[in-house]
Amino acid sequence: MKKMIKIAIAGLGTVGSSVINYLEKNNNYLSKNINNQIKIVGICASNIKKSRSFDINKYVWFDDPVDMIKKTSPNIFIELIGTEKGISYDSIKYAIEHNVHVISANKALIANYGNELFPLAEKNNINFLFEASVAGGIPVIKIIKESLLGNNITKISGILNGSTNYILSNMTNNELEYKVAFDNAQNEGYLEANPDFDINGIDSAHKLSILSSLCFKNKLTKFDSIYCEGISKINKIDIKYAKQLNFVIKLLSVAEIIENKLIQYVKPIMIDKNLQLAKVDGVLNGIEITSNELGKIFFQGNGAGGPATASSVISDIVQISKNNIQPSLGMSFDNLKKSDNLSIVDPLKHYNSYYIRLNVKDQKGVLADITSHLKNHNISIETLIQNPKDEEFQDDFIPLVFITHKTYFYNIKNSINKIISLENINNEPVVIQIDKV
Amino acid sequence: MKKMIKIAIAGLGTVGSSVINYLEKNNNYLSKNINNQIKIVGICASNIKKSRSFDINKYVWFDDPVDMIKKTSPNIFIELIGTEKGISYDSIKYAIEHNVHVISANKALIANYGNELFPLAEKNNINFLFEASVAGGIPVIKIIKESLLGNNITKISGILNGSTNYILSNMTNNELEYKVAFDNAQNEGYLEANPDFDINGIDSAHKLSILSSLCFKNKLTKFDSIYCEGISKINKIDIKYAKQLNFVIKLLSVAEIIENKLIQYVKPIMIDKNLQLAKVDGVLNGIEITSNELGKIFFQGNGAGGPATASSVISDIVQISKNNIQPSLGMSFDNLKKSDNLSIVDPLKHYNSYYIRLNVKDQKGVLADITSHLKNHNISIETLIQNPKDEEFQDDFIPLVFITHKTYFYNIKNSINKIISLENINNEPVVIQIDKV
Repeated sequence: MKKMIKIAIAGLGTVGSSVINYLEKNNNYLSKNINNQIKIVGICASNIKKSRSFDINKYVWFDDPVDMIKKTSPNIFIELIGTEKGISYDSIKYAIEHNVHVISANKALIANYGNELFPLAEKNNINFLFEASVAGGIPVIKIIKESLLGNNITKISGILNGSTNYILSNMTNNELEYKVAFDNAQNEGYLEANPDFDINGIDSAHKLSILSSLCFKNKLTKFDSIYCEGISKINKIDIKYAKQLNFVIKLLSVAEIIENKLIQYVKPIMIDKNLQLAKVDGVLNGIEITSNELGKIFFQGNGAGGPATASSVISDIVQISKNNIQPSLGMSFDNLKKSDNLSIVDPLKHYNSYYIRLNVKDQKGVLADITSHLKNHNISIETLIQNPKDEEFQDDFIPLVFITHKTYFYNIKNSINKIISLENINNEPVVIQIDKV
Repeated sequence: MKKMIKIAIAGLGTVGSSVINYLEKNNNYLSKNINNQIKIVGICASNIKKSRSFDINKYVWFDDPVDMIKKTSPNIFIELIGTEKGISYDSIKYAIEHNVHVISANKALIANYGNELFPLAEKNNINFLFEASVAGGIPVIKIIKESLLGNNITKISGILNGSTNYILSNMTNNELEYKVAFDNAQNEGYLEANPDFDINGIDSAHKLSILSSLCFKNKLTKFDSIYCEGISKINKIDIKYAKQLNFVIKLLSVAEIIENKLIQYVKPIMIDKNLQLAKVDGVLNGIEITSNELGKIFFQGNGAGGPATASSVISDIVQISKNNIQPSLGMSFDNLKKSDNLSIVDPLKHYNSYYIRLNVKDQKGVLADITSHLKNHNISIETLIQNPKDEEFQDDFIPLVFITHKTYFYNIKNSINKIISLENINNEPVVIQIDKV
């Protein structure tokens, strides 16, 4: 006879509803494949009155997730509420402490409290899984944690946020200003009610934090050790220059080991238009992992949306159905490197090529002033672009673009501080990292 | 104290040697990650005198794999010999029957004898794993078998053979004739001593057979139910026309369910140059999986080469180290659909657009004759290309290219049979399936 797996679901937004939709449609199929019966023993959300894609009367409703766990004694508690602490944290912790397996899609919570919850889960001999927290339906967590556990990974680089990728793709493909593309994304429902976490790169950084720990086998680093820059300063004209230079601008999340030091950042970056990452369009996510053994391996798929993210929740149910307890980050928490001991590179010491766009008054001497500041900060110029005056620039200011050779970011920062004090410069310069192949 | 995992390796070619190289370099790292000690208790190959990338004197040598298993009692037997039956089959079967876990990279053996060996492994409660048999370092087997076990997969489409992809990429990027690109591949060491299995698509078909079973949850189908067409008939001029039409020619391995019927084939296909699969270049492999839940998910990585393939062997060791026995195809063999009951579509009933290139004598009436034959077989033409006479065609014959609307392959076949009997046609026409987005 098949074993019964009882699941209780808290949070009935897009993902929670999709999990229920999936189970209503495919429960027999799934049961056959995993040789276990799945039963939803409780559902929970803050507002019982909201209209939903399924009939809530088929299930036992709870207003409070801890109460649900207490009263239904599930085998698996699925947390899809998504608050960074509060009720999500309380209910997950309660479940773990009562030996209930946990599945969550909550990257903010995991990035911030994983170091507390992972060892607790290990101690209580339950699975705490979160495939759905990163890159929607791409099973990247399981790949790193299991298939690549023996690999010496040196770099992970990904497009981990569908909303910002949609905005940048839209700006690129349709030559739109940021504000217009942003409004489009909002109208299409691709942005959260509060879109700041997406736009400022925080959401990407939460995901990167989890992937970085998995790849480099260390406890989660302090969240603020990830340098984070959003996309709101990118202009249509920068996209245009990127095209001219055969680049595409993507919001990349990168974690890399260089000379035993860890580099972690989320930034808009100009990448070669022929790279697979450059082709990741719209709301898709893409991830490239480099290891000594495999060279580069690349994954692409739907990074958001109910059915894709629900697919990852289901894959975690499949995993738990096998009765195989495993540590959240693939290896025993005590065997992970201590994050305090990691040497994390100061963002000012990032060493790259950069794109610098200045708006300057087309007057004698201005170029000489700028280049002398660059030279004083040891920045050498690879390319200078001064296009014929564009019709879009009706005033006296014209854009001046520099592509630098590789240099430390503090040189860029310091020279920019000098340059903006010059008389004939308008606005804050735009600086974008360039990754050459 | 850490458990000791004893492994015995048979077959010390590129992959076998790379596994040993990896373990010599990374055994401590791996042991820490999986919390187990790995020890190589025996190695075996046919020729002890061959020069190798490691010192065989550090290990206990055997000439016969069954003898090695008998004398070393390993926990895991790793078969990297690669014969379709014979010694590979005998030693794997011996290992399974003696409750030794098996890891193999032998796609030919698995495609042909999996239906016999999988249930035997299940009965003996051991793992029979073969991540390295398909797509080198891409962990696609584990992804389908575990992460996508709950998904309703409808299609898998992949570039599964690095050698042929190298030849086609080389023809495309450097405008080479097939023969020249073939010789290049041979000189670069990308072809087997007997390259027929690569060139004719058999190697791809072996891999497709395994993936198709995994995706659609059925026992392996009879190998000859996979329609198989190689790349040797592709000409430089076809590559040129493909470019002109914004296509790229790739040797694709496709398994698809349409109206509950299974379609399986390996064919050179013209695909949109903007697809991710079209960008899979050189010896890389790429795989796209479509499921109801996820839409399309795409993977790319090194499909061959020692270190990449060894990485998959190592991932299977990691899997076994967890003490978690699981069926070879993800679910219990008895729960898989019987392959005899599957409805497999006759290749003649494949329904697609096609590219047809004829070499015709530039004489009055010839076009009318051809088009009347096409019309008689219900083939309607979408595009006709008759370029100005190319300098490469010194004789009286010029190429004539037709792009058809979707039609059954038997219509194409029958019309071609008529057309080749016409007087002014030179050579066998070239027919290539077209996949439109």
